[in-house]
Amino acid sequence: MLKYSLEKLFFSNSFCKSNQFRCISHFSASIWDVTSGKHREGDQLNVKGWVKSVRKLKEHAFLEINDGSCNKNLQLVVDKAQLNGAAYGSSVDASGTLGVTPKNQLELKVERLQEFGKCPLSEGYPFYPKKSYPPDYVRNHLHLRPQVSSLASTLRVRHHATKCFNDYLDREGFFQIHTPIITSNDCEGAGEAFLVRPASADLLKQMAKKDVPLDRAYFDRQAYLTVSGQLHLEAMSHGLGKVYTFGPTFRAENSKSPIHLSEFYMLELEEAFMETLEDLTNRIESMIKHVTKSLLDVASEDLAAVRKLTDDSTLEESFSWLDKPYPRITFKEAIHVLEQNKSKLKSVVRPEEGINKEQELFLVSHFQCPLFVIDWPKAIKSFYMRENRTEPALVDAMDFLVPHVGELVGGSVRENEYDRLKAKLPDQEALRWYLELRKFGSVPTAGFGLGLERYLCWVLNVHNIRDVIPFPRWAHNCSM
Amino acid sequence: MLKYSLEKLFFSNSFCKSNQFRCISHFSASIWDVTSGKHREGDQLNVKGWVKSVRKLKEHAFLEINDGSCNKNLQLVVDKAQLNGAAYGSSVDASGTLGVTPKNQLELKVERLQEFGKCPLSEGYPFYPKKSYPPDYVRNHLHLRPQVSSLASTLRVRHHATKCFNDYLDREGFFQIHTPIITSNDCEGAGEAFLVRPASADLLKQMAKKDVPLDRAYFDRQAYLTVSGQLHLEAMSHGLGKVYTFGPTFRAENSKSPIHLSEFYMLELEEAFMETLEDLTNRIESMIKHVTKSLLDVASEDLAAVRKLTDDSTLEESFSWLDKPYPRITFKEAIHVLEQNKSKLKSVVRPEEGINKEQELFLVSHFQCPLFVIDWPKAIKSFYMRENRTEPALVDAMDFLVPHVGELVGGSVRENEYDRLKAKLPDQEALRWYLELRKFGSVPTAGFGLGLERYLCWVLNVHNIRDVIPFPRWAHNCSM
Repeated sequence: MLKYSLEKLFFSNSFCKSNQFRCISHFSASIWDVTSGKHREGDQLNVKGWVKSVRKLKEHAFLEINDGSCNKNLQLVVDKAQLNGAAYGSSVDASGTLGVTPKNQLELKVERLQEFGKCPLSEGYPFYPKKSYPPDYVRNHLHLRPQVSSLASTLRVRHHATKCFNDYLDREGFFQIHTPIITSNDCEGAGEAFLVRPASADLLKQMAKKDVPLDRAYFDRQAYLTVSGQLHLEAMSHGLGKVYTFGPTFRAENSKSPIHLSEFYMLELEEAFMETLEDLTNRIESMIKHVTKSLLDVASEDLAAVRKLTDDSTLEESFSWLDKPYPRITFKEAIHVLEQNKSKLKSVVRPEEGINKEQELFLVSHFQCPLFVIDWPKAIKSFYMRENRTEPALVDAMDFLVPHVGELVGGSVRENEYDRLKAKLPDQEALRWYLELRKFGSVPTAGFGLGLERYLCWVLNVHNIRDVIPFPRWAHNCSM
Repeated sequence: MLKYSLEKLFFSNSFCKSNQFRCISHFSASIWDVTSGKHREGDQLNVKGWVKSVRKLKEHAFLEINDGSCNKNLQLVVDKAQLNGAAYGSSVDASGTLGVTPKNQLELKVERLQEFGKCPLSEGYPFYPKKSYPPDYVRNHLHLRPQVSSLASTLRVRHHATKCFNDYLDREGFFQIHTPIITSNDCEGAGEAFLVRPASADLLKQMAKKDVPLDRAYFDRQAYLTVSGQLHLEAMSHGLGKVYTFGPTFRAENSKSPIHLSEFYMLELEEAFMETLEDLTNRIESMIKHVTKSLLDVASEDLAAVRKLTDDSTLEESFSWLDKPYPRITFKEAIHVLEQNKSKLKSVVRPEEGINKEQELFLVSHFQCPLFVIDWPKAIKSFYMRENRTEPALVDAMDFLVPHVGELVGGSVRENEYDRLKAKLPDQEALRWYLELRKFGSVPTAGFGLGLERYLCWVLNVHNIRDVIPFPRWAHNCSM
């Protein structure tokens, strides 16, 4: 009765069905496969990709194609008669034999070329061949942006960085927790939060309850997009021990700043039984160094391709900070350095307001190194930070500052004593659950938040955060 | 001038500072370290965790403690005089020497025990010792839930499953793309979407623009929470080739169903140059099998611990489906099977409405195996699915059905011909960008979406989706 028997289906190979000519002997390969040495001269291959350039000589055409698997192109050598209209921007399916150029590069001597789709430049394609465009222009064409090689490299680096962070934390015994995106707790002040409600007015009416305003009917309460998973993560650390969350976070700010977005990715970590700022800063330093070294191992070509747009240094020079120990200076010491150097600063040093971006960058350049600022004044930090047990005007908090970005990581040891926390809690009713963590089996915990985009801006030397995230959202901007 | 010199700071060790006694020789270890054989009899260790049970004999007390690193406990042997009040639920810091019980299990003979935090049962702690609670009860205490061992096991399995999916896709050459959470495209109909706007009325006023309604002032337009990253992923596949997204997805539905949530995690994949349903179903079958085998390698103890609550089978019996080929049956064949068996179904078979959950589960049990349903009627499927080129009433779409969950994966080959897509596009203006992908360098692509929570329900044999996600959100429910 059935069209296919189980065995036939499972072992059948669709390879030959759709593209008969490939069946002769051509093995489907990515350009990464080819350029990383998986194939050699004489191999019969099928490759597919987008045409990045076309050069025509007497009888042959030379096409550079890229398939997104890496930042390198593969050269196709095609009989002009076989070109079938393939031109810059169009997509092709090519089968042939791998040969070697006079310069000892692999190239595909094409026996058959098919075009999937054309690319009519005259009908509005925004990227002309052999032209380079400024990031602002590229960003105006979000949907076609991955076809620009520097953006594709950036997104591959983003993939690898995400994986390196996850791998490091898994090896270190941390469990990834998906903290909620929609939350009824508004951790750091409603001013910066987005509200969430169903789009359907009918649904809201249907769900209406007495004494609940209609726009809150879906969840029976006000619901926000998360501004931080920290408090939820602290709950998870009480039971799971070492936990982290690595996902989207939101800020409703009217900001045009090149280091702020409305939607960005944050790695937040919480480690149970961690009691000191020194352990916390060691954890951060170790993580940043391990992750960046792994990233250089797997993504150096893409990293170099993006960095070369803004910086002439070699990767070795650019990443010399990997071999340095990072200083820990106190907030008081930081202010002292800034005051000693106030003639070099545009902004006024106001310790009661903390350290602004210009001042952060000055500190990094003064110490010629990423650095930690520890022991912050209690008055300017959050309620959940532990009051220093010997200097009660301070909290056990830290910021980690890096070149050209400023603050990359902020963290603290948390207040784990029930009575002290209760006295400081801003909203007793909404955060009763948070207080209970310190009532039932409380343990010391410490943690931090790291912005993925800021990390990428730093390691890629990209100066606008909108160019390291696939779909940037900021004030007045949410296309697609 | 500085409090610490660079070298001193980098090489200093905080270990001895906070807990002087640990400095003698006790090495800080997780219970996973101990139970997985990293330590042996005679080792001087420091462990920390929560007390899961206390048994007192004449001179000694035996404490089982767990630190979240694994589902096993470690037994502490403590002089009664040293107990310091440590009791069920409290958190402790124990140093001592590793010994072996008469049953050849490792245990820690404690020399010093410190209590971090008490756990006053009488003041509202919801989980009493030696009692087991139904999931509905446990779920009412979300913030303390990770302290329940089955929930901790579930969340560790969730971590490992997430990692296994990411690792598999990285090995296969896919790049993870963070598709946007806030979007101005509402892919599958506004009825199921959540709206987003800033909480601050002042901010909206400050950002007001002529001709833009005030509640849209932040982004200059209506903004939604994503219901699918698919269309954005298709844009990324045109340039990057093989891409996926694995993150939160939202539905504003008034549903109490045990397989629906308002916020859930979806793996969506898009593969450029993939042309056939057969390749697509092979990709899915291969992924599910590889990922599940890896998961059994790294998380079998936690998997078994959760499964044993609802199922007496061994893991080998439960996962026998890993060695079977999965049938592919056409929609027409599926309807035929259902009609032949209508006496066994409560619901009426209505092909024009597709296949409902009862019918999905019937098909799985009929074939005694997970299976693919392919070749769906065009009339009941989405605009972006490719019309079958030989049978125009069908689309090249598939559903993958598994026991006790029903549909786990849905996917299709996409329409990559500009003119055909243009004719089918529901909202020409909002989706102009999507159409342009098929105008400039269009390639064949195919892809699918898989629900992480449904996968976890299946492999863990958990029957309510709210029990496999850390912070479930559904109609009228958004606590914390």
